[in-house]
Amino acid sequence: MSRTEISTLGEFALIDKLTEGLTPENPSTALGVGDDCAVLHYPDKEVLVTTDLLLEGVHFDLTYVPLKHLGYKAVMVNLSDICAMNGTPRQITVSLGISARFSVEDIEELYSGIRLACQYAHVDIVGGDTTSSLTGLTISITAIGEADKEQVVRRSGARETDLICVTGDLGASYMGLQLLEREKAVLQGTTGDVQPDFAGREYILQRQLRPEARLDVVSALAQAGVRPTAMMDISDGLSSELIHICRQSRCGCRLYEERIPIDYQTAAMAEELNMNVITCALNGGEDYELLFTVPFADYERVQDIKDVHIVGHITKPELGRMLVTRDNVEMELQAQGFVAFRQPDSDK
Amino acid sequence: MSRTEISTLGEFALIDKLTEGLTPENPSTALGVGDDCAVLHYPDKEVLVTTDLLLEGVHFDLTYVPLKHLGYKAVMVNLSDICAMNGTPRQITVSLGISARFSVEDIEELYSGIRLACQYAHVDIVGGDTTSSLTGLTISITAIGEADKEQVVRRSGARETDLICVTGDLGASYMGLQLLEREKAVLQGTTGDVQPDFAGREYILQRQLRPEARLDVVSALAQAGVRPTAMMDISDGLSSELIHICRQSRCGCRLYEERIPIDYQTAAMAEELNMNVITCALNGGEDYELLFTVPFADYERVQDIKDVHIVGHITKPELGRMLVTRDNVEMELQAQGFVAFRQPDSDK
Repeated sequence: MSRTEISTLGEFALIDKLTEGLTPENPSTALGVGDDCAVLHYPDKEVLVTTDLLLEGVHFDLTYVPLKHLGYKAVMVNLSDICAMNGTPRQITVSLGISARFSVEDIEELYSGIRLACQYAHVDIVGGDTTSSLTGLTISITAIGEADKEQVVRRSGARETDLICVTGDLGASYMGLQLLEREKAVLQGTTGDVQPDFAGREYILQRQLRPEARLDVVSALAQAGVRPTAMMDISDGLSSELIHICRQSRCGCRLYEERIPIDYQTAAMAEELNMNVITCALNGGEDYELLFTVPFADYERVQDIKDVHIVGHITKPELGRMLVTRDNVEMELQAQGFVAFRQPDSDK
Repeated sequence: MSRTEISTLGEFALIDKLTEGLTPENPSTALGVGDDCAVLHYPDKEVLVTTDLLLEGVHFDLTYVPLKHLGYKAVMVNLSDICAMNGTPRQITVSLGISARFSVEDIEELYSGIRLACQYAHVDIVGGDTTSSLTGLTISITAIGEADKEQVVRRSGARETDLICVTGDLGASYMGLQLLEREKAVLQGTTGDVQPDFAGREYILQRQLRPEARLDVVSALAQAGVRPTAMMDISDGLSSELIHICRQSRCGCRLYEERIPIDYQTAAMAEELNMNVITCALNGGEDYELLFTVPFADYERVQDIKDVHIVGHITKPELGRMLVTRDNVEMELQAQGFVAFRQPDSDK
């Protein structure tokens, strides 16, 4: 594969190359890339804004994450935050800090993943910033979305007796990460051209490398006429997020271990690694599923929505935030989720 | 001064500390920090969005940039882009990547500059992301602003005979940077506690360390009833920006050297460093002044606006993009402005 140095192109030519042929598809995009600002038009909707900063070595490891997947995921994690407000994403801005290790072709590969995610979600790329970096790759994405005023769901609206729901299944992304980390360690100990064996583990890998924001569930809720009372996306682990909702809604909860949805591959991987699968599902992080609460009266309506699972209910605050185990023991929920400042830093 | 490690606090507590007491002052801010997204409300205006990524070692050098100034400047460079569309900034999101070199107190200092800039410009901090970084400090800010639909000014509207205007004076920030770089080199060669002598150079230092977005000029234009036909902010140097406007407006220009506004301190510093002051004013960058064009009929109205200077006029494209020197020689304008990929990278 050919390698073109970014310095031979320059910033403006690189941006032109990356954004070539971008045509906005949302009526709310009045002006996209190419000026000092994007111009958006939201006369009838609330505007939702969220942003995420992804740094090489902290949030991703290019030893095993293909650049195209990374671009795709970087977009999806932002769209997931728009979904978490019960909104629909419409635009993103993309800022990249790029070290000389990366060629023009590398960045095109990254950007193709970004564009693919946008295409899939009908989101317009409307701006950004591209600059050199001294070390590694930096990706900062801001997503903008919309929701009707009365449809916006915050974290603070959960009420006693509300049902607690989660989408999809949990812990798979974390197990995918463990698998990739293990294979990396194995490969670094060898000299030959060993191909890791991922057969039968495609699902957990896909969940780690190519997560999908639950745009489908936001649509399904609207179609079913269900407006959640509180909602978040699960990026730091179910425990941590449920505690956020309880704190901000000033309530307690009972979460039933046996109801937490776990895929077979997740369970199998956990067993192989001798890890407690429930701990992984509660604290693994990077699920990008939705956690939400609905009034008890919506029981049947949410039960009929594909991929939505009722996992517990909201209680009075004095009853605490409890996990009810399979053998009916109550334990206090602990947030052991991903902590952004836990890992060691190298430039003390 | 005490030093608290960020790892002892954790991400959520750090964010709480930094955003403590933030109260939105704009009616367009329906929901600020603390949920998955900010919620904004823009029923009657166009929404302007811009973003900038600032990386340590590429965009700033903490050897001589105080953290508080850095925070202030990081906000202002974004607000400047909102001004460049003839808009008014209302909200920002702030993402920080922080290595272990930085203490909680350092980040509070940085954030105090961010908050000061927001206070000054009546801008709400509505969200962001805070994470650890392996190397140095990363700042990514997205600014959101508003403008009436018919007031938004793009780069593409300049027409033949339009007057070319710039605000303030040019090249000062670049000269401030040269001074700081020189003092840094001097200091690195010494062991004693030498205090650099900045007397009589306060203005160029202030322009480098604490630039102001020209919110005042946007207001003054509105009050004078002048709507520019094209506008940009000058971040990469007047030459480069004027070429952008000419390209996007498909026109030529004549820029008069003798009319380019230059401060006395800028000229003195250039002479001391044996640099051509006009080259510095044309290509220095980081001025964060506004460059705009207005119909010839607005001549008197713009002349009366404080700090606005008419520096040339727009021509037919076939006449080229010309600089007319003091001795009446025409030279083609060259963009030699700041190029983000020019500097060497360290991790090839």
